[in-house]
Amino acid sequence: MQYYNLFILLVLVLLHGLSHGLGIDQASRLRALRGKRLGGERSSDDGRWEVLDMEDEGFFDSGKMEDDLIEGGLPGQPSGVLFKQYSGYVTVNELKGRNLFYYFAEAAEDPSSKPLLLWLNGGPGCSSLGVGAMVEIGPFGVKPDGKTLYLRPYAWNKVANTLFLESPVGVGFSYSNNSFEYNENGDKRTAQDTYAFLINWFRRFPHYKNRDFYIMGESYAGFYIPELADTIIRRNMKAVSSSIIHLKGIMIGNGIMNDMTDNRGFYDYLWSHALISDKTHQGLVEYCKFPDSYECKKLEDHIELEVGLIDFYNIYAPVCLRASNSSRKPKRHGGFDPCEADYVLRYLNLPQVQEALHANRTKIPYAWEVCSSVITSWTDSPSTMFPIYKRLISSGLQILIYSGDVDAVVSVVGTRYSINALNLKVIRPWHPWSESTKVVGGYRVVYEGLTFATIRGAGHEVPRFQPRRAFALMESFVAGK
Amino acid sequence: MQYYNLFILLVLVLLHGLSHGLGIDQASRLRALRGKRLGGERSSDDGRWEVLDMEDEGFFDSGKMEDDLIEGGLPGQPSGVLFKQYSGYVTVNELKGRNLFYYFAEAAEDPSSKPLLLWLNGGPGCSSLGVGAMVEIGPFGVKPDGKTLYLRPYAWNKVANTLFLESPVGVGFSYSNNSFEYNENGDKRTAQDTYAFLINWFRRFPHYKNRDFYIMGESYAGFYIPELADTIIRRNMKAVSSSIIHLKGIMIGNGIMNDMTDNRGFYDYLWSHALISDKTHQGLVEYCKFPDSYECKKLEDHIELEVGLIDFYNIYAPVCLRASNSSRKPKRHGGFDPCEADYVLRYLNLPQVQEALHANRTKIPYAWEVCSSVITSWTDSPSTMFPIYKRLISSGLQILIYSGDVDAVVSVVGTRYSINALNLKVIRPWHPWSESTKVVGGYRVVYEGLTFATIRGAGHEVPRFQPRRAFALMESFVAGK
Repeated sequence: MQYYNLFILLVLVLLHGLSHGLGIDQASRLRALRGKRLGGERSSDDGRWEVLDMEDEGFFDSGKMEDDLIEGGLPGQPSGVLFKQYSGYVTVNELKGRNLFYYFAEAAEDPSSKPLLLWLNGGPGCSSLGVGAMVEIGPFGVKPDGKTLYLRPYAWNKVANTLFLESPVGVGFSYSNNSFEYNENGDKRTAQDTYAFLINWFRRFPHYKNRDFYIMGESYAGFYIPELADTIIRRNMKAVSSSIIHLKGIMIGNGIMNDMTDNRGFYDYLWSHALISDKTHQGLVEYCKFPDSYECKKLEDHIELEVGLIDFYNIYAPVCLRASNSSRKPKRHGGFDPCEADYVLRYLNLPQVQEALHANRTKIPYAWEVCSSVITSWTDSPSTMFPIYKRLISSGLQILIYSGDVDAVVSVVGTRYSINALNLKVIRPWHPWSESTKVVGGYRVVYEGLTFATIRGAGHEVPRFQPRRAFALMESFVAGK
Repeated sequence: MQYYNLFILLVLVLLHGLSHGLGIDQASRLRALRGKRLGGERSSDDGRWEVLDMEDEGFFDSGKMEDDLIEGGLPGQPSGVLFKQYSGYVTVNELKGRNLFYYFAEAAEDPSSKPLLLWLNGGPGCSSLGVGAMVEIGPFGVKPDGKTLYLRPYAWNKVANTLFLESPVGVGFSYSNNSFEYNENGDKRTAQDTYAFLINWFRRFPHYKNRDFYIMGESYAGFYIPELADTIIRRNMKAVSSSIIHLKGIMIGNGIMNDMTDNRGFYDYLWSHALISDKTHQGLVEYCKFPDSYECKKLEDHIELEVGLIDFYNIYAPVCLRASNSSRKPKRHGGFDPCEADYVLRYLNLPQVQEALHANRTKIPYAWEVCSSVITSWTDSPSTMFPIYKRLISSGLQILIYSGDVDAVVSVVGTRYSINALNLKVIRPWHPWSESTKVVGGYRVVYEGLTFATIRGAGHEVPRFQPRRAFALMESFVAGK
């Protein structure tokens, strides 16, 4: 529940509907940003994604992996954990003072034979440590006390070495020495900085340099990941062999792809899932072809009234009703705790946790947050990933797009529209897939160069809601199936 | 999971997909029946619903309520239960020997001040005792041992005196002395027999005669209930005052209303909920305007292949994987047990239970079943309820149509199409409703003469999947809100 998809309508609409610390001001600000993005500040030629030159091509402090070892493990972790964990900062721009924070959990068994997986959360502005690692796929989750950890049954480090990056600067523990830089974040710089992070991280962990490498993530990382993959592929062409990154594949969940189809999918999803009236749906379809129009803005406001207090990120999940006028304790519903992000917030702000993580050594003047509130603007963002997808497909990269089907934010309907618009040849038509049981885990279509899969009953953060199904999907992807 | 909506496509398609004791033969038989129904055997003038004359207007054995008292309660029921329970047979046609079985649980507190509620399940052929009472709204559910009962937290007899009827003959313990009659069941005779049942039941329980009376139910009872209400209203006009039934309202969940819109809703629901491919959806929309066509039949077969093993009655619920090649015990998922109908089957076939219920005294030559397998044909069924709805609306009856939104069988999309086709004036537009918490329980639209409500996250048997929300809805309906 803690992502902002800055640019997707509903986020604007719903952020202040849910109690995750964002008030109406935040929502209004986001709305303003979206107008801006959809206005002059977006590239009209979305094919012109360019891989930026490195602002500072020098090698930064590559550091020593030994210094990043989390000795004795994380505070409050259960006993008997044998895999190694590392975390710390990698400077991505020395001149401007941009430093990205990472957390790395080696594979639980035999890490040297396992691939390397980079996980990225979206937002923009949300933390891969707080969301990806702590409530989705990392080895540990945080208990309601906010102090102790539990082992996640379907942790992805059972299959891969898992690297979580807080990106861009301003997110989580990642920072810049120059705070105005938080307003200069955008897609291009994020790709550039992440690439610089990888080059330097591989220098710090040289034995991972030749490892099969996968990038995975969700939501707004639907932009980050193709952009980063494109950057890696282009730079690999120019790079000396020691700097080549062995990117094998990308796997993106409930990721944004293309404004027009994503938005239409959002409207149609809301209607077909009985969340809005016929009239509002008809209006959205008619007027929101031009999202800047007065009629569209009015209808977007109206969505919120009609839908009321639900979790747009999983339309059937319980909502975290902390504080407010409810004195009830958050309840676990079948193992799912809607308030888990609160516990993570408390945990990662504990001084002993930050010390163990080698985080926040420069005394950042704000608390760690699940999603950043210091990032208040965004300089560039394309309206579509189609041109990049076309390049990635022709590069032969292994591509899996997956979609939790009870997420309204980046809905399965929108993603289907988007993939259809790519006009790819179907190699294997729609069919159910399943994990260990006979029961359907979701559906799959194999296109030439790209596979699409759904995860039945999963919300926006798929591994959070359907951990076993998500794990099975990832495992089979990494196995090349 | 134990209804057959004989006439709705998907049932044909999915019945043998789920393990509830029906094999492929059954599915084929149902398919044949549907063809028949959609062919010559359906009334082409659906406005010509007629209230049949009673075949035998004589007063049957009205019996004594004392004889029907379940003394000491049901076998295995928890201690401390104070409300009275009755059950037994009411003859509805003496000449033909048709006898309907009922189970009646008085209100838990102060029954004399509470309304009377008749609950009907659909099918046709499914038991209101086995489904409605035992897994949905009755005071007790059956534990996995198949022998002991638990108190249902949101039992509807907290608000009303609850009457469950096994109807028509051939369902559950209801029987005819002439077994050929099981093939002569149809909508008209069902309405007629249920009316006769009510007249005689009120004679047996005279202190309920002037009580506010509601009819509630779901699924194929979307036909039974309006037809019964229409029958009551018409017969009330002719009846002597002592035979007037004080019908106040009807409340129908995931009920079929009108073939064309229900079917179109089914196809669109499957697509928008990411269960079938674009291609199959397009085909269904194009070819299934004529359900008898070869192309349509082929596509219907294809649905099953594309969808695989899920529960169409709650597309996100776990499926009961008993027997088969799985040795795992059924698990309870957040309080929901997908195998509960199995326990009911065992419980209601225990000799001591049948004895306590005064059931099966004539030694019916087949076991009690959740859904009847002795009913193998159906003589009449309209293609639409619209003409009856129009009459009921103009009669001033209180009407609530509700829809659990994760049911594919009679989907919320189809029900919305159907209600739209009724062309009623909107009195209060689409808005969220909630029970005790702030969280949205579903949505509501008030039309002139009819209210439509959804229940968020509920499958076909709404009170089974969302007991608290269903209870709140019923409570407010009975309170006239």
